[in-house]
Amino acid sequence: MPIPASLQNLIDALRVLPGVGPKSAARMAFHLVQRDQVGASDLAHALENALGTLKHCRHCNTFTEADTCDICLDEQRNHAQLCVIEMPTDLMSIEQTRSYEGLYFVLMGRLSPLDGIGPHDIALKQLLERASDGQVTEVILATNFTTEGEATAHYVAEMLRARGLKVSRIARGLPVGGELEHVDPGTLAQALIERRGL
Amino acid sequence: MPIPASLQNLIDALRVLPGVGPKSAARMAFHLVQRDQVGASDLAHALENALGTLKHCRHCNTFTEADTCDICLDEQRNHAQLCVIEMPTDLMSIEQTRSYEGLYFVLMGRLSPLDGIGPHDIALKQLLERASDGQVTEVILATNFTTEGEATAHYVAEMLRARGLKVSRIARGLPVGGELEHVDPGTLAQALIERRGL
Repeated sequence: MPIPASLQNLIDALRVLPGVGPKSAARMAFHLVQRDQVGASDLAHALENALGTLKHCRHCNTFTEADTCDICLDEQRNHAQLCVIEMPTDLMSIEQTRSYEGLYFVLMGRLSPLDGIGPHDIALKQLLERASDGQVTEVILATNFTTEGEATAHYVAEMLRARGLKVSRIARGLPVGGELEHVDPGTLAQALIERRGL
Repeated sequence: MPIPASLQNLIDALRVLPGVGPKSAARMAFHLVQRDQVGASDLAHALENALGTLKHCRHCNTFTEADTCDICLDEQRNHAQLCVIEMPTDLMSIEQTRSYEGLYFVLMGRLSPLDGIGPHDIALKQLLERASDGQVTEVILATNFTTEGEATAHYVAEMLRARGLKVSRIARGLPVGGELEHVDPGTLAQALIERRGL
């Protein structure tokens, strides 16, 4: 095989990226080595820097470079509400709405038995401790409405209700600007079931 | 924005990979930092190792860790034939056929005015020198049958024919096992035009 070892190693190493198969990895490797050596070098440094500096917020489990993240340190926020999400990207999505003033807890994953991710592989124990601090009165479950996200929400709800905590789930329904004609039947059914009194 | 700087840097750095947009880059970064720190570290090292050791074969321009690649050093091969290809992956594809005994020349790209890649951005000058070594008698153009690959083949053919070299182009036609019913009209038209006497 006329591929130099260091190039083959790079192709193999790129396979750790989610969604990258052998052909993409080869294309990426050739691109980096041939067309963007500066970008490749930056990427190597960014990886090492991130691995060296990032840790988890001791309160909410999101990524941070300090012990506690800025949101958890913010005294202006409502420390009685805890919103449980799967990933830090979800935190960013909710922050962008500017409609939530409480704190977060990031599970860093979801229950997914098919992928071998069980209750001990996401931060459920840590969530239980966090939610039992005496300050939190409501836990809002904002995991995704996928099969795995729903299963996770169900599991977390059972776990927290057993401790006497108030648990809620973000609403399902039509999107803003949504038309009944274009929405899928499952969503429409949920919008009917979860109708609100006016 | 509640994203630590080192994580944001990693997300930005991943954008250098071809085909990776902001959402994919974020997903990759979280995956690496949360689920595969070993893979992330391996990737950083593989990048630095590849950048440090890979160079271009002085004869055929493919990637190699030595001055000259194994194929160019192989005395058993036909040094009178030179097959011109776009990328090292194409070299691998042709080698896998075990039907070509000559040498290669890798352009490391194709002419693509829309992407700002002109004659001086691929190894055309080096190809001209290589093909004029006195040993090469036939140059086989095996660039892709895309618009850019065809333009490149046309340009290279003009350039080499002006030096009195024999230039050929790999054949277009139906694939092995191909059925007329399922092949696109352009390919079928070419298969008719390029028909061979029996």
